[in-house]
Amino acid sequence: MNNVLAADIGGTNLRLAIIDPQGHILDESRMQAELSLHSAESHIQAEAHIITTLSDGIAAFLAQSSYSANSIGMGFPGFFHGETGVLAASPNLPLLHNFPLAELLSNSIEKPVAVQNDALCAAIGEHRFGAGKGQSSLLHITLGTGVGGGLILNHKPYGGEHGMAMEFGHLCVEQSIQNNNGRLCGCGNHDCLETYASASAVVQRYAEKTGKASNARDIFQLACDGDAIATSILTDAGDYLGKAIAESIKLMDISTVTISGGLSGAWPIIHPSLMETLDANLIPPLKGKVHVLRSTLADNAGLLGAAAIASNS
Amino acid sequence: MNNVLAADIGGTNLRLAIIDPQGHILDESRMQAELSLHSAESHIQAEAHIITTLSDGIAAFLAQSSYSANSIGMGFPGFFHGETGVLAASPNLPLLHNFPLAELLSNSIEKPVAVQNDALCAAIGEHRFGAGKGQSSLLHITLGTGVGGGLILNHKPYGGEHGMAMEFGHLCVEQSIQNNNGRLCGCGNHDCLETYASASAVVQRYAEKTGKASNARDIFQLACDGDAIATSILTDAGDYLGKAIAESIKLMDISTVTISGGLSGAWPIIHPSLMETLDANLIPPLKGKVHVLRSTLADNAGLLGAAAIASNS
Repeated sequence: MNNVLAADIGGTNLRLAIIDPQGHILDESRMQAELSLHSAESHIQAEAHIITTLSDGIAAFLAQSSYSANSIGMGFPGFFHGETGVLAASPNLPLLHNFPLAELLSNSIEKPVAVQNDALCAAIGEHRFGAGKGQSSLLHITLGTGVGGGLILNHKPYGGEHGMAMEFGHLCVEQSIQNNNGRLCGCGNHDCLETYASASAVVQRYAEKTGKASNARDIFQLACDGDAIATSILTDAGDYLGKAIAESIKLMDISTVTISGGLSGAWPIIHPSLMETLDANLIPPLKGKVHVLRSTLADNAGLLGAAAIASNS
Repeated sequence: MNNVLAADIGGTNLRLAIIDPQGHILDESRMQAELSLHSAESHIQAEAHIITTLSDGIAAFLAQSSYSANSIGMGFPGFFHGETGVLAASPNLPLLHNFPLAELLSNSIEKPVAVQNDALCAAIGEHRFGAGKGQSSLLHITLGTGVGGGLILNHKPYGGEHGMAMEFGHLCVEQSIQNNNGRLCGCGNHDCLETYASASAVVQRYAEKTGKASNARDIFQLACDGDAIATSILTDAGDYLGKAIAESIKLMDISTVTISGGLSGAWPIIHPSLMETLDANLIPPLKGKVHVLRSTLADNAGLLGAAAIASNS
């Protein structure tokens, strides 16, 4: 068991780290990098840009680090074909289809590379090293700019038939048959969970109700200080999360749910409302059987999951 | 590969059949039998009554049949611990907990017995022999008195951590955070799918709107003849099914859904509204990827699934 290089890739930044077999981060680097090449006219140009950006970043990190790594694991935003490392599609990189990201990157870096969806990597990390350790199944939720989800079933990552499982943030939480009047989501539907329970939704709802710009951390502090509007928006976020978790558990019967991401900082307000709504909405034999835990990995779940999928870990 | 005895157990009836390895029903019997012993004062009495009722029924069927079978597979209403045949609990048989049904029945009949949840058996049957044959994953829905669901993931039945996965009929389809004003479901919650899309819900809604008693088949015929109320109730059933399927697919990314049960007889009305609502509610990359098929097994899915889990099939 050797150290590995883990990479957590966002739209505009790379986070790279050397991680030991016990999940300790030995060395780390964050760098800005624009993955989408706006001047790209073909998928060939777009693909070449991504491979160059990622392999240059990784080479530069390894060159300056006092640690070495023989294999690489990566979380990447997009839908993957099983465990092949082939990117089926990525909403933010529309030129790419069936792009053999792991293989091309491995050829470029000359080390084995494994790549998986970023939200699924976060679930893998939480299951291997965090609050979900030892559980047979796990539903992991990331409350960030959006709301992401990843699923472990019977100790294995579950990606679905097209790598699109656990689009948890797009569960509809204020639904009627034809729902065209609610909060518009980036996906085109209305009243998706992420229009209530993401950090950006909380910020937007607070601005709508008060006319004031603020950030999620300040809104949490306002709620702690007794502000009624901040409290009601965060309580709503918890309630809608509880509702969406209840629907998920009715389908998948999982006992353990973990939550990470920026908005989980408002845990003292979100968790009680979440648990109350969850319990109210479960069927009777499932009530009391579901534990919802705050991540113990802060914002490292995705990075540690990337380490876990690297070839020798 | 030998013929097996398959049993599909309801609350007040047993359905027994001899089934060959290709899924052909060679001989069949339906009999009335009350599983719950209303005079039972202890779980010991309740358990003994069930074992006696089932083994007597099976012995009588085998005695009169010209076919033989060396093993038994059974679908039973309740939650099971994995594939052990141990009944964790059954909502309709509240005295039973952690009841080793398969083992005791096997001791009594002196043949190997496998038992699994009835709705999961229907999914297994549809996957092995029906419209879901050859698919890696399958969501199977039964529209009967209630709405049941069963799940095949990566070619394997998925029961969840407590055997309670796919409580599909209890997905909430007209939700708000605290929903206490909708249609009351038997589970105690409001606006569960089964309060709109089961045969009994269709009958009840028609009676509410017209003051007339009717059955689901007649309501379908009325809709075919242009009756606006019958049409709107069946269209609603399809719409709510589409909504619930969309939420399920967003979580589990499954391409194939099959539907059986009495209300699937209204397919020409239910299927178009279902597909329209499903497609409207999926996230863009999943649109068009989901096929919803009518069962090809009529009401035999559960029986054939029971045959599929019997030990030598």
